Amino acid sequence: MQTVELIHKKRDGKELTTEEIRHLVQGYASGTIPDYQMSAWAMAVFFQGMTSRERAALTMEMVHSGEVVNLDSIQGIKVDKHSTGGVGDTTTLVLGPLVAAAGVPVAKLSGRGLGHTGGTIDKLESFEGFSTSLTTDAFVKQVNELGVAVMGQTADLTPADKQLYGLRDVTATVDSIPLIASSIMSKKIAAGANGIVLDVKTGKGAFMKDEEHAVELAQAMVEIGSHVGRKTVAIISDMEQPLGLAIGNALEAKEAIDTLKGEGPADLTEICLTLGAHMVVIGGKAKTAEEARHLLEEKIADGSALAKFREFIEAQGGNGGAIDDPSQLAQAHHLIEVKAPAAGTVAALEAEEIGICAMMLGAGRETKDAVIDHAVGIVLAKKVGDRVEEGEVLAVLHANDQSKVAEVKERFLKAVTLSDKPSSPPRLIRALVTEQGVTTL
Amino acid sequence: MQTVELIHKKRDGKELTTEEIRHLVQGYASGTIPDYQMSAWAMAVFFQGMTSRERAALTMEMVHSGEVVNLDSIQGIKVDKHSTGGVGDTTTLVLGPLVAAAGVPVAKLSGRGLGHTGGTIDKLESFEGFSTSLTTDAFVKQVNELGVAVMGQTADLTPADKQLYGLRDVTATVDSIPLIASSIMSKKIAAGANGIVLDVKTGKGAFMKDEEHAVELAQAMVEIGSHVGRKTVAIISDMEQPLGLAIGNALEAKEAIDTLKGEGPADLTEICLTLGAHMVVIGGKAKTAEEARHLLEEKIADGSALAKFREFIEAQGGNGGAIDDPSQLAQAHHLIEVKAPAAGTVAALEAEEIGICAMMLGAGRETKDAVIDHAVGIVLAKKVGDRVEEGEVLAVLHANDQSKVAEVKERFLKAVTLSDKPSSPPRLIRALVTEQGVTTL
Repeated sequence: MQTVELIHKKRDGKELTTEEIRHLVQGYASGTIPDYQMSAWAMAVFFQGMTSRERAALTMEMVHSGEVVNLDSIQGIKVDKHSTGGVGDTTTLVLGPLVAAAGVPVAKLSGRGLGHTGGTIDKLESFEGFSTSLTTDAFVKQVNELGVAVMGQTADLTPADKQLYGLRDVTATVDSIPLIASSIMSKKIAAGANGIVLDVKTGKGAFMKDEEHAVELAQAMVEIGSHVGRKTVAIISDMEQPLGLAIGNALEAKEAIDTLKGEGPADLTEICLTLGAHMVVIGGKAKTAEEARHLLEEKIADGSALAKFREFIEAQGGNGGAIDDPSQLAQAHHLIEVKAPAAGTVAALEAEEIGICAMMLGAGRETKDAVIDHAVGIVLAKKVGDRVEEGEVLAVLHANDQSKVAEVKERFLKAVTLSDKPSSPPRLIRALVTEQGVTTL
Repeated sequence: MQTVELIHKKRDGKELTTEEIRHLVQGYASGTIPDYQMSAWAMAVFFQGMTSRERAALTMEMVHSGEVVNLDSIQGIKVDKHSTGGVGDTTTLVLGPLVAAAGVPVAKLSGRGLGHTGGTIDKLESFEGFSTSLTTDAFVKQVNELGVAVMGQTADLTPADKQLYGLRDVTATVDSIPLIASSIMSKKIAAGANGIVLDVKTGKGAFMKDEEHAVELAQAMVEIGSHVGRKTVAIISDMEQPLGLAIGNALEAKEAIDTLKGEGPADLTEICLTLGAHMVVIGGKAKTAEEARHLLEEKIADGSALAKFREFIEAQGGNGGAIDDPSQLAQAHHLIEVKAPAAGTVAALEAEEIGICAMMLGAGRETKDAVIDHAVGIVLAKKVGDRVEEGEVLAVLHANDQSKVAEVKERFLKAVTLSDKPSSPPRLIRALVTEQGVTTL
């Protein structure tokens, strides 16, 4: 098989066979196909797209390029959740115990990653003593016993995807829907998921800036799932402003506790119930999303979701006492109020910018080796649509290092738009994408 | 300047600045920009094209990537000719002495190249003793004295173009009009031309299979010329069937002699007069193409074109006697007639296939190191539109090695289509492309 012919074929808008896609991925992974051919192919894909079958084939070839986690010894249908990234996204912390309380096993491999705040592991490590260094046996045992466990990812999953992503990053071929969709789905499938619930963010703070493309990406992923026998459902949710109120590791951990108690911010609660309901349906513990949602609401109301969180934190060595007394989580030394310079209605809170403010305070990593400060971050007091008076608190900065506070304060204020006209909060959940199609909400 | 941003910009259909194109070409040539970024950029260009200004900038960057031949010490306006490749194209051999006889200096750098028959140097070496190993001084002196010289290309012209072409060849980005146009024009400009006359072939035997794309390529090159101050004119000519009757080095040399005597095939004569006329106009020796054509016809009629050919051949050590007695050119040992299997009108003579037949006989090079047999090749007896009777000669194969003759004969017959309906010869010169626009002929 001549690689140049396959690039040519895609360039001319033709469909590659599964064998041809295998040739490309295996050849690239093994080094027989050079970067310059793969990047030309990726650019041709950017312009010509890929059919459903091609996307499914690409996904599975990337899955098989590395180790595949076998979760067969865990009873039940393993449903994984994935968010396409955003600011202040505490959903994973809430959903693990919540869904487990409803009887759906959550076996999560997680990383630290780069970003405005840490990854799931960083947030969990806000509980003193918490560790994700489990053996696979201990991991499986914990999921079977408690229903939930989070393990640091050690296996070499989807190396071809990592390699291709690295190449796309430097050749302007990142934002191609078929390539993004295959990349995300390959990671979830390699991590052992039987079913997948996706939260595709849209808006200024998200990777997908507009709703149309977010829906397109969601459809692409749901289609791949359907092609490869993994039931997949996606919601499109707003990321014009941060989700919830807290941005920062311990701050988000506390927000997760509040939410599991039924006292969390409305938007975070809503999104957790929506995503959780789909996980419960795919996990076979409810027939409809409505039924599942009621089940989850019950688990919050009767305290079992919060109890599950405590069991989970303690099982992995964390300080469960912090669940009853969140002051036992890491605390910042300085709380600095950011006040409204004028009266008005909050018309915009730029999620991305606010994320950067949190990172500047030390909540996230700009580089792989950066050290995270679990205590720091931002807690919003107002969100889009809220009325504020001059001098009223917009947010509280939680800082340890005071040297950057002035700069962060200024940047934060630039990220806030106050208007003299009333403004309504953005629609939180925009659409539901299933195998049956797109339902705009 | 971030290379990935430049790829992104082109991918999104935006125009790169001259500085940005310089960054790409210089970076690629110096090795700081890797192949994988350049191939992604080339694929983006394939889809998004380049503006006139971008093409001109790319051309000049490739020119300046290597040596540039300085022909300033040659008096007069140096006009170069370029054909986009074809089968049996003897025009360069004819045009050199013909145009020189009309007073326009022809200072040609030439290569051997791959192909069905040899390059210009191979054809000239059919004259025993002919050498293109001139010093630059001798080359300049000869052009100033005789009006025509051909030197083997030793300078490292347009290395960035060679490098990019090699990459395009393996990444399915060869057939991009802006990249082809810049590549051709950069080579001509680096070789020192003040003006350029282009013969863009179209048809099955040409690189540009259809007329529309041939016109597009011609326009692109004329535009580049105009942008960078090199007066450029192009014709679009037919390459459905071979040009002239001879395909093979000595056979084409003899055909050139015939043409310079006014006894050549009609199509070759016509194309040489047309191209030559534009060269003479650009060279400032006539005001209009008609006037120039008359001048050239005169130079053929009065014997001065043929005399110039003899002077030229002898000045470079070749056997000028062969001009009066072409039997002194290399002769093949076996002449094999290929006869018509049935009566009819020649409806098609596939140029590419017939070129391959000549190469199989040893007239061309399949690989760089292949040895050419100057004597061998094919002489057509019939062309498209000609009536043939059963058993009448279609062509004569000139062979030294008889082992391949049967195979060549069979392949040749497959390349000929005989029809019981009358068929007219293809229009030879389809269009003229100048700065003023396209004139369909």
